Amino acid sequence: MDKVRVRFLPAGEVVEGDVGATILDLAREAGVSISSVCGGDGICGGCRVIIQKGEVEASPTSLLTRDEIRRGYALACQTRVRGDAEVLIPLEARSEGAQILLDDDAQRFRALLPVDEEGVSFRHHPLVSKVALKVPPPSLEDNLGDQERLLREVRRQTDGPQIQLGLKVLQGLPELLRRADWEVTATLALRGGVRELVQVEPGDRRRNFGVAVDVGTSTVVAHLVDLASSRTVDAEACYNAQASFGEEVTRRIIHAERGGLQELHDAIAGDLNRLVSALISRNAVELKDVTAVVCAGNTAMQHFVLGLDPARLRKGPYVPVTTTPPPVRAAEVGVKINPRGLLYTVPSIGGWVGGDITAGILATGLHRSEQLTMLVDIGTNGEIVLGNREWMLACSTSAGPAFEGSSVRCGVRAGQGAIERVEITSQGHVRLEVIGEGKPKGVCGSGLIDLLAELAEAGLIDRSGQLKPGSSPRVRDRDGLLEFVIVVGDRAAGGEDIVITQADIENLLRAKAAVYAGADILLSSVGLEFADVDRLLVAGGFGNYLDREKAVLLGLLPDIALERIRFVGNTAIMGAKLSLLSAEALEEAHRASRGVTYFDLISYPDYYDDFMSAKFIPHTEEGRFPSVASRLKEAV
Amino acid sequence: MDKVRVRFLPAGEVVEGDVGATILDLAREAGVSISSVCGGDGICGGCRVIIQKGEVEASPTSLLTRDEIRRGYALACQTRVRGDAEVLIPLEARSEGAQILLDDDAQRFRALLPVDEEGVSFRHHPLVSKVALKVPPPSLEDNLGDQERLLREVRRQTDGPQIQLGLKVLQGLPELLRRADWEVTATLALRGGVRELVQVEPGDRRRNFGVAVDVGTSTVVAHLVDLASSRTVDAEACYNAQASFGEEVTRRIIHAERGGLQELHDAIAGDLNRLVSALISRNAVELKDVTAVVCAGNTAMQHFVLGLDPARLRKGPYVPVTTTPPPVRAAEVGVKINPRGLLYTVPSIGGWVGGDITAGILATGLHRSEQLTMLVDIGTNGEIVLGNREWMLACSTSAGPAFEGSSVRCGVRAGQGAIERVEITSQGHVRLEVIGEGKPKGVCGSGLIDLLAELAEAGLIDRSGQLKPGSSPRVRDRDGLLEFVIVVGDRAAGGEDIVITQADIENLLRAKAAVYAGADILLSSVGLEFADVDRLLVAGGFGNYLDREKAVLLGLLPDIALERIRFVGNTAIMGAKLSLLSAEALEEAHRASRGVTYFDLISYPDYYDDFMSAKFIPHTEEGRFPSVASRLKEAV
Repeated sequence: MDKVRVRFLPAGEVVEGDVGATILDLAREAGVSISSVCGGDGICGGCRVIIQKGEVEASPTSLLTRDEIRRGYALACQTRVRGDAEVLIPLEARSEGAQILLDDDAQRFRALLPVDEEGVSFRHHPLVSKVALKVPPPSLEDNLGDQERLLREVRRQTDGPQIQLGLKVLQGLPELLRRADWEVTATLALRGGVRELVQVEPGDRRRNFGVAVDVGTSTVVAHLVDLASSRTVDAEACYNAQASFGEEVTRRIIHAERGGLQELHDAIAGDLNRLVSALISRNAVELKDVTAVVCAGNTAMQHFVLGLDPARLRKGPYVPVTTTPPPVRAAEVGVKINPRGLLYTVPSIGGWVGGDITAGILATGLHRSEQLTMLVDIGTNGEIVLGNREWMLACSTSAGPAFEGSSVRCGVRAGQGAIERVEITSQGHVRLEVIGEGKPKGVCGSGLIDLLAELAEAGLIDRSGQLKPGSSPRVRDRDGLLEFVIVVGDRAAGGEDIVITQADIENLLRAKAAVYAGADILLSSVGLEFADVDRLLVAGGFGNYLDREKAVLLGLLPDIALERIRFVGNTAIMGAKLSLLSAEALEEAHRASRGVTYFDLISYPDYYDDFMSAKFIPHTEEGRFPSVASRLKEAV
Repeated sequence: MDKVRVRFLPAGEVVEGDVGATILDLAREAGVSISSVCGGDGICGGCRVIIQKGEVEASPTSLLTRDEIRRGYALACQTRVRGDAEVLIPLEARSEGAQILLDDDAQRFRALLPVDEEGVSFRHHPLVSKVALKVPPPSLEDNLGDQERLLREVRRQTDGPQIQLGLKVLQGLPELLRRADWEVTATLALRGGVRELVQVEPGDRRRNFGVAVDVGTSTVVAHLVDLASSRTVDAEACYNAQASFGEEVTRRIIHAERGGLQELHDAIAGDLNRLVSALISRNAVELKDVTAVVCAGNTAMQHFVLGLDPARLRKGPYVPVTTTPPPVRAAEVGVKINPRGLLYTVPSIGGWVGGDITAGILATGLHRSEQLTMLVDIGTNGEIVLGNREWMLACSTSAGPAFEGSSVRCGVRAGQGAIERVEITSQGHVRLEVIGEGKPKGVCGSGLIDLLAELAEAGLIDRSGQLKPGSSPRVRDRDGLLEFVIVVGDRAAGGEDIVITQADIENLLRAKAAVYAGADILLSSVGLEFADVDRLLVAGGFGNYLDREKAVLLGLLPDIALERIRFVGNTAIMGAKLSLLSAEALEEAHRASRGVTYFDLISYPDYYDDFMSAKFIPHTEEGRFPSVASRLKEAV
C-alpha cells in the first residue's frame, strides 16, 4: 500500500502511514493527542483539525460550518489522507495527552481542605514504611538464621501483623547483611492483613516516598508525599491520555470491549509514569525511594489501571470486576516506582460510584459527621453522597465533563491560561481572571459557572439559556448558530476568538441540571429536602475556587444559606493521600465504602422530569430559589 | 580444539567433547550419573569406571590396585580422554542420578508408622484446599463486584483467615465466572497467616493432590497424597542427582561456593520434577491438580531446593539463610506442579538439624510425649533428638552415608536388588534376603548392620572390626587389603563378586560409633543415661526393617530392653505428609522446632574419646553391653 507522510503542527511530529488512514489514527501513531469525545465515530466534533497542506478525503459532516471548511477545518476521525499532508491541531482540539502541566498549575490541584479541620485525623502509619536496623551479628551462642535474625530485629522495633517475605528478598539476604555489616533498612508494606518485607537495603536508607493519585477520566493528578514526615513535596497533573480513545468513560469501555483494554491500560499507566517521573526528577528523589502508589479513581479508571475488563460496568446490572482491588506490585501493572513497591486502590462503592468518592468521604469525614452532609463531586460525572455517621446514600449523575472544560468549545481544564473568573459589568464589558501569565486559552469550570450566571444576570440569555440576539454586540450569529464572544482573537492565546456557543450553553445547562436533579432526588428518596442539609460540600478539579453565589444563581447548587456551602477542592487526591499515610485511613475507607447504599437514578421514575425542570435558570420552580428570583427579575 | 566421542556403557549414551576433558565431566554432559563422594577431587575413589576402548591419560592414584588398573579401571575424575573412547560404568559407580526406582521398591520407602498410633493426630485441614461453589449470579438488587461475590461465597462455605488474591486471578475472573455459568471451584492456599485464592476453575474440579517429599542428601522420596481424602496414592523415590557434585553435603556446599549453586538447585529441582511426573502419570493425575508440595530435608537440602546460598552452614557460627522458609510459588523454584501451586518447607531446627528432624518429631509425637524419648535418624548424617513434652535437645553426628549404602563399596540404597538381611550360619554359609527379584546388586543399610553383627558373632572379625585372615574361605587378601566375599560374581547382578572390604568395615564402624557416641553425650549432657530412655525410636530410609538385636550387638544402639526400641521408618516423609494434610500440624512443627535446643557435639571436649571407644564392637566398655558380651565371648 502507498505510504504518506503527515506532519502535525504546531509541534512538528511526523508520521508515515498508509494512504487512506484517518488523521486521528495517524495522530495516535505519532503520539499526538487529539481530543475525541465520541472515540472516532464522527459524532462529537471534538477532533477538529486544520489541514494546512495536502490532499484529504472527508465524509460529509454537519459539525463544521462552511466557513470552517473553507478555512481548512476537518474532523480528524472522518478525514482520510490521500497524499503527504500537514495538519495543524488547534488549541481547542489539543487534548495534550499526557503533557504535564507546569508546576504552578499543578499546585492549583492541591487539595484545599486541611486534614484535621473536620476532625478527620489518623495516626501516621504509612502503608509502606522503612525501618533502619542494627542487627546483632551471629555468634555460636546466637546463631539464628539470617531471616529469623532480621525479623527478630524488625519485631523489636515495630508493631504490626505477621511478616511475609518473598524468595527474591530471602535469596539476597545473606550477602546483603554481611556486605552492609549488619546495618540495613527494611521496607515493610501492609498487604491484606499481613506485612510484606518488600526489600532490604544496605545502610540507613529511610528516604521513603509515596504517590497519591486522583485518576480522573479527564485529568490525572499526582502528589508526591514524604512518607516519613507526611509532607506533600510536590504536585503534578496531566490530562488522561485515554482521551484519544473517547472522552466519555462509556466510549472507553466500548473501546476495551473491542480489544483495546491493553491500549487503555497502557495509556493510563504511561500517564502515571510520566507524573511520577516529573515529580521525582524535580525533587531529586530516586525512583527506588518511591515505594507506594495509592490510586483513587472512578470504578472504570480503577479497572483500566489494573487491566481489569470493564465491559460489565456498562450494562445492567453494572457489575465491576471488583470494588476492593487488592494491593498489587506496581511493576505488575506497568507502573514504574521501586520495582518491589506496591500500588493500592481506594475501594469503590459500586460500578458508577468509585474510589474517588470513597476518598472524598474519607477526606471530608462525611462518614463520621453528626450533621447531615451532602458531598457533590463535579468531575466528568457528578457524583453525590448524602448522609452522616449513621447512613450514607450515593448516586451518579451523567453530568458529562462540561465543567471540567470538555464538550464545551471554549472549555479548558483549570490550568495555565484558563479563564477562572468572569464578570460582565453593567456597561457590558467582560472582566476576566486568568490562571498564570499570558493570554487566555479558554474557560475552565469555575469560569464557566461565572459566565453562565453573569450572562443570565445581565439578561443576555433567557431562563432557558437561549442567547438573545441583539442583547449585546458580543452576541453574534455564525452560520445560524448564536454565540457570545468572551475574548477576541488578537487577545487570545490561539489567535481565534474565544466564544461560548448556544450548543455549549446547552451542554452546561444539562450538566448543572443533572447534578441538581440528582441531589434533589437523593434527598427526596429519604424524605428530606435541601433545607435539611447542614453542610453542602462541593468537590472537584474545575478550578481553585467556586463562586457559591453564582453557582446558586445558575441553579447548579440549591438556594440554601451560603455559609452552609463549602468548596472543598480535590477530595479524591486528599483521600488517596490520607490512605497512603495511614493504614487506618484506608481501613476506614473500606468500612465507609461498605456503608454506602447506591441509589440508581435511572430507575427513579421522575428523574427525567426533574432533570428537565432543572435545565432552567435557576429552575422551572422559582419557589425553590427565592434569593435568585428577584436578582434575575431585575435583569430580564 | 580437537573433539572426541565417548560412549558410556552399559546404556550407550554418546557424548562429543574436547580432547583433555575428564570422563566425569563428559559423563555429566551426557547426563550419565557417576557416583562421586569427593566431588571430583580424586580423593574418594567413588567414580571408578572401566575404560574399554580408547586412549586416556590418568593421574597416578593409590585408590586403584595394579590388578584393577590392568583390568581397565580408572577414576573418572582423574582421567582425561585423548581420543574416542568407550567407558563402562560398573554397577558400584553408578549413582543412577535421578533414575526412578521401580514402584515396588519405592513402596518400601513408605513410612511405617501409622499417623495416630502415638496419639499424633491432626484435623484434616490441607495447606491447599479446593471448594466447589455455586455463586448466585448478579442482579440489580445484588450487584456486588465479581471478586466480592466470589469471596462472599467462599466465606460462606469455609472458615479461615483473611483471603488474598493476585492480579492474574482477578483479571481472569469476570470471563471465567460467566463462562462457567457461576459454578466454579476455588483453590485456597494457607500462606503466612492469610489464605491466598490461588486459582479459580470452571465447574466442580475438586480433585486436589499434594506431594510430600523427603529431600535426603542421598535419596529423595516423594509421596502423592489425595488432599481431599488424605489417602497416600503412591510413592516414588530416586537418588539425589546432586551426588555427581559430591556425596557429602559439605562437598556440595563447596561446589555452591564455587558458583555451582544454580547447578545444585537445578539438580534437585529436576529430581522433584521427575518424581512428580512419575507419580502423576502412573496414577492418571493431571499436573494442574497437584497444588502443593511440602519438603522436609536437612537444612542444606532446603537451601538447595530454594536456591539459597548455603555457604555459611559450613563455617562457624553455622548460620542458615533461614530455618523457616516461607511458602513460595513452586514454579518460582522450578518445580512443576500447578503453575500457581505452592511449595512449603518443614522448618529446620538449625544449620545441622534440619526439617527432616522436625518432621520426625512431628511424626513420632516426641514433642507431645510424657515419656523420655530418643529419636535417632540414620540418614547421611545421624541426627538425634532427646526429650519429651517439656524439653528437647538435638545434635547431629557426622556419621556419613555408610548405612545409606554410600562410601561402602558393596553398599546400595534400599531398593530392587539390595541385600537387606544377612545371616552367617554356623557352617559358615551366608544366607541373604534380597529386595525384589533377580540377582543381588549390593547390600543396603539393614543388610550391612546384619552383616557386621554376623561377622562379629561368627568370629570373622575381631572387636576392632579387623577381618581375621584364615577364619573363613570367604576372607581373602586382595592387593594387601582383606575383604569378605558376600556373593560370588556369577551369582551377582554385576557379574563381579560382592565383597565387604576392611576399609568398608571401618567406614561402617565410624558411622555406628558417631551415632552411639552422639546419643550417649546428648544424654550425659543432661545427666541421664540410656537406661532412662523410655522409648528409642530409630528412623531412616536404610531398609524396611531393623534387626534390633543385631544393631545392639554391633553397638549401634544401646543395650536396653528391645521392646523399648522401635524402628519407625522414614519419619521425614511422614512429617511432611502430616504438614501437607493439616495446617495445624505444620504450625505445630514450627512450635516444636523452636522448642528444640541444639547441642553442638564438636564443642564437647570428650566427644573424640567417646567416639573412639564406640568404634569397638560393641564398645570398649563391655559393661555397657551386658547382653552382648556373653554372645560375642562364645564366638571368639
